[in-house]
Amino acid sequence: MNVPGSESLAYEVAAPAPVPTFPLDQWYVAALGWQLTDKPVGRTLLNKPVVLFRTPDGQVAALEDRCCHRALPLSNGTLDERGLRCGYHGLLFNGDGKCIEIPGQDKIPSKAKVPAYHVKERDQIVWIWFGSSEHPEPNCEPPAYEVHSSGKYIFDGDVYHYDAPYQLIHDNLMDLSHLGYVHLRTIGGNASIHMNAEMKVESDDRTVTVTRYMPGSVPPPTYVAAYPFKDRVDRWQEIEFHVSHLRIWTGAVDANTESLSNPDRGGFHMRGFHGVTPETETTSHYFWTIATNPQSDHEAIKAKVVEQTALTFEEDKVIIEAQYQNMCRFGTPPMIDIHVDVGANRARKIIEQLRHCAR
Amino acid sequence: MNVPGSESLAYEVAAPAPVPTFPLDQWYVAALGWQLTDKPVGRTLLNKPVVLFRTPDGQVAALEDRCCHRALPLSNGTLDERGLRCGYHGLLFNGDGKCIEIPGQDKIPSKAKVPAYHVKERDQIVWIWFGSSEHPEPNCEPPAYEVHSSGKYIFDGDVYHYDAPYQLIHDNLMDLSHLGYVHLRTIGGNASIHMNAEMKVESDDRTVTVTRYMPGSVPPPTYVAAYPFKDRVDRWQEIEFHVSHLRIWTGAVDANTESLSNPDRGGFHMRGFHGVTPETETTSHYFWTIATNPQSDHEAIKAKVVEQTALTFEEDKVIIEAQYQNMCRFGTPPMIDIHVDVGANRARKIIEQLRHCAR
Amino acid sequence: MNVPGSESLAYEVAAPAPVPTFPLDQWYVAALGWQLTDKPVGRTLLNKPVVLFRTPDGQVAALEDRCCHRALPLSNGTLDERGLRCGYHGLLFNGDGKCIEIPGQDKIPSKAKVPAYHVKERDQIVWIWFGSSEHPEPNCEPPAYEVHSSGKYIFDGDVYHYDAPYQLIHDNLMDLSHLGYVHLRTIGGNASIHMNAEMKVESDDRTVTVTRYMPGSVPPPTYVAAYPFKDRVDRWQEIEFHVSHLRIWTGAVDANTESLSNPDRGGFHMRGFHGVTPETETTSHYFWTIATNPQSDHEAIKAKVVEQTALTFEEDKVIIEAQYQNMCRFGTPPMIDIHVDVGANRARKIIEQLRHCAR
Repeated sequence: MNVPGSESLAYEVAAPAPVPTFPLDQWYVAALGWQLTDKPVGRTLLNKPVVLFRTPDGQVAALEDRCCHRALPLSNGTLDERGLRCGYHGLLFNGDGKCIEIPGQDKIPSKAKVPAYHVKERDQIVWIWFGSSEHPEPNCEPPAYEVHSSGKYIFDGDVYHYDAPYQLIHDNLMDLSHLGYVHLRTIGGNASIHMNAEMKVESDDRTVTVTRYMPGSVPPPTYVAAYPFKDRVDRWQEIEFHVSHLRIWTGAVDANTESLSNPDRGGFHMRGFHGVTPETETTSHYFWTIATNPQSDHEAIKAKVVEQTALTFEEDKVIIEAQYQNMCRFGTPPMIDIHVDVGANRARKIIEQLRHCAR
Repeated sequence: MNVPGSESLAYEVAAPAPVPTFPLDQWYVAALGWQLTDKPVGRTLLNKPVVLFRTPDGQVAALEDRCCHRALPLSNGTLDERGLRCGYHGLLFNGDGKCIEIPGQDKIPSKAKVPAYHVKERDQIVWIWFGSSEHPEPNCEPPAYEVHSSGKYIFDGDVYHYDAPYQLIHDNLMDLSHLGYVHLRTIGGNASIHMNAEMKVESDDRTVTVTRYMPGSVPPPTYVAAYPFKDRVDRWQEIEFHVSHLRIWTGAVDANTESLSNPDRGGFHMRGFHGVTPETETTSHYFWTIATNPQSDHEAIKAKVVEQTALTFEEDKVIIEAQYQNMCRFGTPPMIDIHVDVGANRARKIIEQLRHCAR
Repeated sequence: MNVPGSESLAYEVAAPAPVPTFPLDQWYVAALGWQLTDKPVGRTLLNKPVVLFRTPDGQVAALEDRCCHRALPLSNGTLDERGLRCGYHGLLFNGDGKCIEIPGQDKIPSKAKVPAYHVKERDQIVWIWFGSSEHPEPNCEPPAYEVHSSGKYIFDGDVYHYDAPYQLIHDNLMDLSHLGYVHLRTIGGNASIHMNAEMKVESDDRTVTVTRYMPGSVPPPTYVAAYPFKDRVDRWQEIEFHVSHLRIWTGAVDANTESLSNPDRGGFHMRGFHGVTPETETTSHYFWTIATNPQSDHEAIKAKVVEQTALTFEEDKVIIEAQYQNMCRFGTPPMIDIHVDVGANRARKIIEQLRHCAR
């Protein structure tokens, strides 16, 4: 408080958020590029309420989502030709968080500012860095994602909110064997082929890859809708886990026509980008894009693939949120592991180690 | 945790449920028989999340509602020709809770199982026994209810969820004098006749009966709709309280035509079964059936009686939930008792004594 | 408990409400006169659940909203020709809280009563006095409000519920500079004229007045809709803060035609009454009326002014609730003050001093 008489501006408030328990020295997805247009976007990321917006020159900016005057979320404000203007009394902030106008007042006190965060847009993904006390400044560039910029694919995406901790989403994405039970209507296909597929898991201290080939499969509904397969197909699933996101490259060629391990393979491709950003310890943002390579009817098939992918992820959301609610009901009795859990468990080990260095 | 590396599968969870404070050595209603068909049913009973289903031979089964692999509620799964299959990775369980298939894996670890509960179906009511540490196994058969099986009545029923503790439902059912204020549209009738009716209360250490006769009453709307009464009627209400359920036999004959105390009396009958099963300390399941004996237009009159009974119980639900919310707002200031509370207070004494032996 | 056997009527209840932290020796608005008709109204005021109703002679009455028998809110009951009857078992109470009938029971125990509160209706506003331990009885008459009774104005109003503490509503009303940002569609007008207007603030130990004149303004949409202004207007805003309510007199005359400081000025008037009554520490009731003086089309213009005022207050509600939610998220970091906060800060000082004498 810098003005006598305002001491009483203290309300009954929620307890302060606990110390973060996330890996902090990472670029996390804050938004998909096309989500930031003519309005500011408020979003809590790693327990921090953030307002995201574009400055007049089109650059992305991220500030603490709280006006320094009377605490209105700046995301309730508006964008004008000079920056982000608070929706209550009109204070104007630039992309660095500096107040550059207080309507009706000549002097702007030096305390009139809000904290700014490091954000960068790359390949249509907006990344944010919070950093630990050791690395408050980013120590690397945000990841490239050429699928969005190479011109070989067409794509779209969205963000879903999960009432579940982020690692349950990792678990789900690291083990695609659930396709045969959860996603029968879209990309699932035959459950026993999924469950019995040969699986290769490799990892280092930051990444895990899971590769599965399923030759001779019946193509599932989404594949048939999007591509003129002749009959049976050879399917591949390649999952790359990174601390803040996953890349999943799946697809199929007509059976016995190509080597699945050749990255230049033809056929039908679905390349998924999955940004899993904790909102809080118990809730998450799930940013996804799906890119594909239709041979004809580009827009129609892209729309179909996106629609079916959205449907698929909604099925996952139902399962994962039910799973988390049940974990809350039951506490922490033991769980048994089965063969498909290897990849997910390695990803958990990586998070476990990085989380220890959080401030 | 039985696999190294899965230690981090611990989430922030709700505090463990408090020690149960219900009478435990009782058969409680878990379901009405016709509610268990081709899908598993998840329901929390006495603080325990349970999945109810029929095994391939049509028997009822009840398991802990949590897959031992990744904790998804088994009630999110499906029934197939061999048992209950989890909706995430397809583990298959039989009615004893034993895992009998892990898709894609030959060996089934001995720990792959979930706890099973004692359930029995009798007269179209599905009963469950949790038991105290003294009686983990049932020490009696579940109650018979011949009204459902004698062929003398036609009936239907439903289950309602209450945001109120189970004993407030007991209170309501033990004192039907509220009919004159709460249920004017259906079974109520004249308030002062209800309030002034002669009432007889008898009890032992497990049951309470309340009997009221109301000769010379104007028949209420539901009665008139269902039966060709000539004018005034002699009404009876017989309430039997048991620890986990109540039986309420009400009805009427044309005034001055029969002795009301004769169990073979004619006239119009409504026989209610009321299974009051705690969900938690503060919420309840209310299972009810209503049986009647129309002289003609059987299905039409049964439908009317069921519809009006449902309406009546919805009126009770509004009152009881408002009452409980008010108790939460006000804490526990004194209450005064009036003449109609005798039966309900005896029922509370029975519960109070049995609750002490809960584990 | 005054009857053996009812000891077990204790439920798990919410923690008792904390000691009130409001100024208590005040008349607060409990209702607008026309809100009390043929049904009892339940409303929590300063943490106390109250039922408001009219007795058979048309006087207003306020009782604790809890039947002394089984704790049903009396606001679930009905009004009859003798008083307020409980909706469960029919106990009847008069305006003093005395039980005057227990259906079916001759003797009425002396404990059969509920606490009554001091209420008075004046100028179509219903005021309630809770009082501190020093002043349990009112030490003054409730405020007059002649705008409602003088015949010079026509008016209407409503009550809004806020998920925000009452002092945030004071802040909002004490500083009308937000009109230029929040209320552009109705009474806002040019933001920089609002922000740069000359402002005079005066106060004593119970009231604060803020006066602003804005000569040469473009009349905002609501003004133009209601009055035949020729072109530019001279606007005034006069805000009177009292501990439990505010009076805001705004209006405009054609530019350069009259002295704005003359209380008999002509032109278009909007006279707002704003009763801000805490529901709890963190929620509020906002009672408002708006009175105006159309030159023609009286009912049509009143309807328009009321409609636009309602819209304006809904805009405030969005901002104030967002502000409070953000305060809860962020805790209590410092706030900076700007030039327009002088009046609001003085009002906070008055509340701060009176709150200390609360019991």
